[in-house]
Amino acid sequence: MSRLCGGIEAGGTRFVCAIGRSPTDLRDVITFPTTTPDETINKAINFFRSNGDRIESLGIGSFGPLSLDPTRADYGYITSTPKHRWQNTDILGVFKKALQIPVILDTDVNSAMLSEHRWGNAQGLEHCVYITVGTGIGGGIIANGRLMNGLTHPEIGHMRVPIDKSIDTYEGSCPYHGDCLEGLASGVAIQQRMSLKSAGSLNDEMIWELESDYIAYGLATLTYVLSPQRIIVGGGVMNRTGLLEKIRDKTTVLLNNYAISDEISTNTESYIVAPGLADKSGVLGALLMAGSF
Amino acid sequence: MSRLCGGIEAGGTRFVCAIGRSPTDLRDVITFPTTTPDETINKAINFFRSNGDRIESLGIGSFGPLSLDPTRADYGYITSTPKHRWQNTDILGVFKKALQIPVILDTDVNSAMLSEHRWGNAQGLEHCVYITVGTGIGGGIIANGRLMNGLTHPEIGHMRVPIDKSIDTYEGSCPYHGDCLEGLASGVAIQQRMSLKSAGSLNDEMIWELESDYIAYGLATLTYVLSPQRIIVGGGVMNRTGLLEKIRDKTTVLLNNYAISDEISTNTESYIVAPGLADKSGVLGALLMAGSF
Repeated sequence: MSRLCGGIEAGGTRFVCAIGRSPTDLRDVITFPTTTPDETINKAINFFRSNGDRIESLGIGSFGPLSLDPTRADYGYITSTPKHRWQNTDILGVFKKALQIPVILDTDVNSAMLSEHRWGNAQGLEHCVYITVGTGIGGGIIANGRLMNGLTHPEIGHMRVPIDKSIDTYEGSCPYHGDCLEGLASGVAIQQRMSLKSAGSLNDEMIWELESDYIAYGLATLTYVLSPQRIIVGGGVMNRTGLLEKIRDKTTVLLNNYAISDEISTNTESYIVAPGLADKSGVLGALLMAGSF
Repeated sequence: MSRLCGGIEAGGTRFVCAIGRSPTDLRDVITFPTTTPDETINKAINFFRSNGDRIESLGIGSFGPLSLDPTRADYGYITSTPKHRWQNTDILGVFKKALQIPVILDTDVNSAMLSEHRWGNAQGLEHCVYITVGTGIGGGIIANGRLMNGLTHPEIGHMRVPIDKSIDTYEGSCPYHGDCLEGLASGVAIQQRMSLKSAGSLNDEMIWELESDYIAYGLATLTYVLSPQRIIVGGGVMNRTGLLEKIRDKTTVLLNNYAISDEISTNTESYIVAPGLADKSGVLGALLMAGSF
């Protein structure tokens, strides 16, 4: 990647914009909150326009769902997102028009998966999953050495998991599915469950137990559907001390040594891991995509 | 495929052995029950040895889990299967030694996925899932046009699904996970739940409602993890009249039009379908693998 590129991690909570070529050649990085589409996108456009370093191409890793099929009229749009103000936003087209350079779009989690594969904790792997537990829950998949988008793109957070209604009476935060994994275990779900607890019997500790239960169910399902070599778990919720370790332990119990390789069963510390690029996975993946032109 | 090939669908309930080249060039097919490894494997070997048509290579699509990593000492073995007598059976080695021809091994469900992709209901698709609901539950995946085995191979049946314990008190049949999808919805689980029902309150109709609930949860999860263009649902349990239609309807309700393409949301009849090769998917896929030498 020799040309200077721009990258945007367009997250549901914050935008990160960067100019550079790699983790060791990052010229400029800014972060600002995700508000309305107009305000947020204009701030990003101004950053790239006013910067002394001119970029030759731009990569955007965005929250979704996205329309990624070039044959469709809504190609490049954020579509049916639970974030109402962002529904039907032509995120690809606006940046193309404003900057007049090649722009490439994929999901924020695919973007993070790509950079972890190139520079982070998935280097050299043929089969890997990146999952983020933040405001929402999402994931990107490398299968047979390539990003796997399927017909649209994965929406891992919306898988279904077991719920013990005798313990957890919370109905879930997902406006489309209620108690899918994202509905039960995203940052939004944790906050809502905590604010509701005066009416219930769960203390904070029990809420975090549920959190690790649900994520562990999700990782067990990903293990059996995808048979990855490693699962990287990122996102703001994972900053909670001890959460990753608890998820690792519970996933190991759930798998119960069935149909997993010895490498995994004897070494879960290297099977379920944190991102290698910390909170820069998304924006570095966007730079990587921009460098593909 | 011009050479004459042999194929075996080594299922948990029955073995199907065939000689031929394609669905329209099947010379000889026999089917017999899966009993002990010795008895069953010898019957298959004798079929290929005594047949007038000599095969030049053999493909085996077997129940699993299988060791498919050629660098491992147990390469070609059936490993930790719930079928005790078949644990640690060198299914690849025994056929190689007896027939002295090239033999290739993969899972029975990968085999079925391959033949559906070549000749059946997944022709021309880049992203597809085949799932079988029989004695057990398993699946094969085509991603980016290629079979996706991951580190070992998918064990889709062992994903987790929601259970309403106030309705379904059955603990599940899976010896490793109890109430994973296979534990709740395999043919074995249906039989056990029916024989236990005198102690409970479920009639046959309610048991089949649960069956379609669990499979629909599984298909919703597969949709969001893999974003396939089509899901093919085979296996003996699916012979139940109306079951496929009920699963299709329930999956559609679960997806609730979120993050799926218009093609799928407006046409679930072509999203969730029966196999195109009926109960021959497995053995035809084995022939296809044999033809790859």
